[in-house]
Amino acid sequence: MKESPLFWPASLKGSTLSVLDETLIPAKLHYIQVKSSAQAVKVIKDMKTRAFGQFLVVLNSFLLDIAQSKNLSESALVKKLEKTADALNKSRPTFPFSEVTSIVTGWANTALKNKMDVRSFVSKNVQGYLMGIRGRRLERVVKVADLIKQGDSILTHCNVSGELAMAAAICQQQGKDVHFFATETRPYMQGAKLTTWELKRMGAKVTLVADNAVGSLMMDGLINKVIVGSDRSCANGDFANKIGTYQIAVLAKEFGIPFYVLTQPSNKVKKGADIPIEIRGADEILKFQGKKILSQKVKGFYPGFDVIPHQLITGQVAIEAGAR
Amino acid sequence: MKESPLFWPASLKGSTLSVLDETLIPAKLHYIQVKSSAQAVKVIKDMKTRAFGQFLVVLNSFLLDIAQSKNLSESALVKKLEKTADALNKSRPTFPFSEVTSIVTGWANTALKNKMDVRSFVSKNVQGYLMGIRGRRLERVVKVADLIKQGDSILTHCNVSGELAMAAAICQQQGKDVHFFATETRPYMQGAKLTTWELKRMGAKVTLVADNAVGSLMMDGLINKVIVGSDRSCANGDFANKIGTYQIAVLAKEFGIPFYVLTQPSNKVKKGADIPIEIRGADEILKFQGKKILSQKVKGFYPGFDVIPHQLITGQVAIEAGAR
Repeated sequence: MKESPLFWPASLKGSTLSVLDETLIPAKLHYIQVKSSAQAVKVIKDMKTRAFGQFLVVLNSFLLDIAQSKNLSESALVKKLEKTADALNKSRPTFPFSEVTSIVTGWANTALKNKMDVRSFVSKNVQGYLMGIRGRRLERVVKVADLIKQGDSILTHCNVSGELAMAAAICQQQGKDVHFFATETRPYMQGAKLTTWELKRMGAKVTLVADNAVGSLMMDGLINKVIVGSDRSCANGDFANKIGTYQIAVLAKEFGIPFYVLTQPSNKVKKGADIPIEIRGADEILKFQGKKILSQKVKGFYPGFDVIPHQLITGQVAIEAGAR
Repeated sequence: MKESPLFWPASLKGSTLSVLDETLIPAKLHYIQVKSSAQAVKVIKDMKTRAFGQFLVVLNSFLLDIAQSKNLSESALVKKLEKTADALNKSRPTFPFSEVTSIVTGWANTALKNKMDVRSFVSKNVQGYLMGIRGRRLERVVKVADLIKQGDSILTHCNVSGELAMAAAICQQQGKDVHFFATETRPYMQGAKLTTWELKRMGAKVTLVADNAVGSLMMDGLINKVIVGSDRSCANGDFANKIGTYQIAVLAKEFGIPFYVLTQPSNKVKKGADIPIEIRGADEILKFQGKKILSQKVKGFYPGFDVIPHQLITGQVAIEAGAR
């Protein structure tokens, strides 16, 4: 299977974590060399990586700690891992990093209590966990390709971290003629910069539209399916994703267009209303590609995500709980 | 009444038409000095002015022709005015400039047939027509202010050419506490650049949001009224406005939020489906403030407007037919 760089945007080589700088795409394919867990937290806060990339960075942060603390006692190492978990958990409120970090600190404490080699036990478990995620995501790509039919015109929003583009490549091999519409996804323009780039790179046909053109496209019969990713799922089937996903779901319902979401189900949160929504800095909407476009005196409001109630979802393309 | 520069963005001084360059706002309050009807057509095509400003430029184009053709015979002048009308009609497909230009060429031909002074007859009629529009738009500002109630949180899209901001100023004098949310309105950012600027300038409270945040704001109960302008109205009550207005109307219906539109009713077009929608150049969505943000190899689609069916409209704040 041809892989998109966004499918697996961070990997450890020795004691350095290479993280794809998604903010430079499509101009440059550049990897940031992350050497400490503190630097990893910063990469997440600065949104150099996002969505699935964040989880890779979170998990690899512990491997960085292990690689860089050869002289620490085992109990000091466990404390260090717990401190890293805490910093990661606080980095972005909408993301349930604690669901993952608590597993890792659990392993560390189990090893310590049972007088096992903490370094080796945690490393092997994290690496195994990563390989498990990888396999299940590859399976999900195949499921998404099955969902896409000959002649489909698919709307997507923000970016689905490689999987939609890889599914598109499979569809091409299968001889399906498919077209994608990607929304820009203001203010970070993930759709414009990442989604058009990776879909084109995988050989798919894609057209960019403004976020405000979705209703018009649907009214004109140009969309017959919506496929989006999710940043967080709930026990009742609600999910959170990049701001704008909710209004697309409402519009899809209005037009009877099936709305599919790639999820990694979780029972940790009961319903959408329980997901804390990160309100990003107002200045992020007053800037464009880092350049000020409006005076700081203008007030901006930028909720980073919204919640899509399960009633609006036609189907989930799920990977098993805990796999991400 | 305190006036916003966007309320009356073009006026003739001698034989020069001063046109507010709306593309430079909020950085600069600059007026383009237009000296010929050909230059006026270019100003419209280049979207230096928009919405109501276009109609001012259209009407004043004939006054420019008259001012600059002192040596032409009356019949040659009428031909020149007809040629100008033709160029204006073709400049932007969605706008019914011919509804206005045909009135002016009608006056010119009437004067010619009846051996009246074409220059004086057309000039006086155009000037009278402009003053009539002005009065009726000022009346509409008062009607909009009446529509706004204490505590309202109003969403607007694109820009309502001074009237909403002036209504906001009246509300302030009346002691009403009102808040506005303005959408960015990609790709030209009229909401970000014009609406936040003029609302703040008139002393109103305004918060900028991305076009994709509308559903989320409504879901969170932050909006209780929508007020937008219109670029074109139909006999059945449908109207066309900047792309994105349609999806806001659908969302407002979903949430039971009243949706108001400022219109200038016309019976020339029967229904929304009959309005030709201008598809702007794809590169306009690949650029940001004139700077390329994406490779020209990326395909973009930018319909400039969409049509809102009358069923989605709570109320029109109308000025009389033919007044604009």
